[in-house]
Amino acid sequence: MSDPTRPIREYLAAWGPRVEAALDLHLPPADRDPQRCHQAMRWSVLGGGKRLRPALVLLGARAAGGDEASVLGVACAVEFLHTYSLIHDDLPAMDDDDYRRGRLSCHAKFDEATAILAGDALNTHAFGLLATTSPDPSRVASLVAELAAASGTHGMVGGQCADLEGEGGAPDELMVRSIHERKTGALITASLRMGAIAVGADNRLLADLGEFARRLGLAFQIVDDVLDEEGAAVDLGKTPGKDRAQGKVTYPAAIGVAASRARADELVRDAAPFAAGTPATPQLISLAAYVLARHS
Amino acid sequence: MSDPTRPIREYLAAWGPRVEAALDLHLPPADRDPQRCHQAMRWSVLGGGKRLRPALVLLGARAAGGDEASVLGVACAVEFLHTYSLIHDDLPAMDDDDYRRGRLSCHAKFDEATAILAGDALNTHAFGLLATTSPDPSRVASLVAELAAASGTHGMVGGQCADLEGEGGAPDELMVRSIHERKTGALITASLRMGAIAVGADNRLLADLGEFARRLGLAFQIVDDVLDEEGAAVDLGKTPGKDRAQGKVTYPAAIGVAASRARADELVRDAAPFAAGTPATPQLISLAAYVLARHS
Repeated sequence: MSDPTRPIREYLAAWGPRVEAALDLHLPPADRDPQRCHQAMRWSVLGGGKRLRPALVLLGARAAGGDEASVLGVACAVEFLHTYSLIHDDLPAMDDDDYRRGRLSCHAKFDEATAILAGDALNTHAFGLLATTSPDPSRVASLVAELAAASGTHGMVGGQCADLEGEGGAPDELMVRSIHERKTGALITASLRMGAIAVGADNRLLADLGEFARRLGLAFQIVDDVLDEEGAAVDLGKTPGKDRAQGKVTYPAAIGVAASRARADELVRDAAPFAAGTPATPQLISLAAYVLARHS
Repeated sequence: MSDPTRPIREYLAAWGPRVEAALDLHLPPADRDPQRCHQAMRWSVLGGGKRLRPALVLLGARAAGGDEASVLGVACAVEFLHTYSLIHDDLPAMDDDDYRRGRLSCHAKFDEATAILAGDALNTHAFGLLATTSPDPSRVASLVAELAAASGTHGMVGGQCADLEGEGGAPDELMVRSIHERKTGALITASLRMGAIAVGADNRLLADLGEFARRLGLAFQIVDDVLDEEGAAVDLGKTPGKDRAQGKVTYPAAIGVAASRARADELVRDAAPFAAGTPATPQLISLAAYVLARHS
């Protein structure tokens, strides 16, 4: 039987270098003032990472019959937004983590003030990029609204708030799911939708892609929780066992490892129909398999 | 002789309550999750403040012959952006100030993590508001680009970086001016321009308004420096004498109090011609007098 992760691995191999080049291009140069802040932004963005969200932006454009190259700026915007959230989450006042993606986190490499400002700048820069690199200026309002909703207090920031408040509490599945859907799911869902919005997708396709990505995003986070629980540092890029040590609400803590794995499998199975019948269907289905393969 | 600050005081008296109501309306309710984060956002935004930037947005629209009521959302966006910068500037890792606008700063009232997240959410929310409340959707791209440029590393964040790096160094006027123009001037300039952009101003008017606001913004900051140097807590709303105690680069530290006052007067005089011949001219000229009156 052929490897179900092959289509997405080939896709990532083809587009990965172009995404990395675009990220580099859309970051301010390290030798321009304020140098330390620019260096910190580049340290955190260019320090590796799976680039799941940029890939979803490209696949969203492809699913809508658009040109992936035209949404590279949008892909960078989403990755900058994601990176700002990692920088701020790692701060001493938040999750207090000195390592990220296998190397020093931003405040550990530079200092706290620089990390706060580098994160702030990446947040702002993400929206600026949407305004200046979108293939069609008339779609900027929709793109900005989508990213702001996904990353504000109804989305990513809200999830981080709930995560901090939830520490030490007795976790149940509903609570964990609600946190995951906001903290990571909302931006993952927005990524796929934004790629499609940028090239003019209709509302029907946007709704289907949203349903697909919502399930994929939750499955991704459940797998992340399981990997953390099992202490696998390989693909995680952060300090393993950290969630448990901090008493974070996770799927394994709520329903156990075996049930968590089953839930992720189920989500990926349920997601598939929503990705049917588009030019990006093989890659999206393969991406779902790829997400599961991380914990197999 | 009539009071030159009267036109702007009357204008602020008329529009102030509508701006406050709009700020309240465009903030998430305090009783909706994440409650603590929403409460922190509301604490910092609704805790008073001169509302200089919202007033400039309204005056920009008026100068371009537009309707002020149509840009209230844009005015709120700029104030949210400004407030996020104050919350983060006050953090222990930054200026470490427990007081702001005459009461506890965000992290002192809540906690550091909440303050970081509330600031992040306000930054994001500012851009979201531009996308959803602009009078003409086709101008959203220009508004977002203008706000992002003014508040990123070429603007506000860049000024804060330089300010932190400059602490303790020997100040000269060129350095102080460069920091002020980025840290506070860029957003003040963007505010006036954005009001005009939102209602469709032409590039000639935008350029003139930019020149006016650039001088006004620098004069405003010089007066702020002088007030801080003189320890006047009345109109300052922050801990006076703080700049000096932290060895910040200020105009009085660079060229003395008397020369600083003269520089502010000169800037306001030079600004006036750029505000001539618009429906907002009386208010803009009066606003410049109002800025100077703070230190007279």
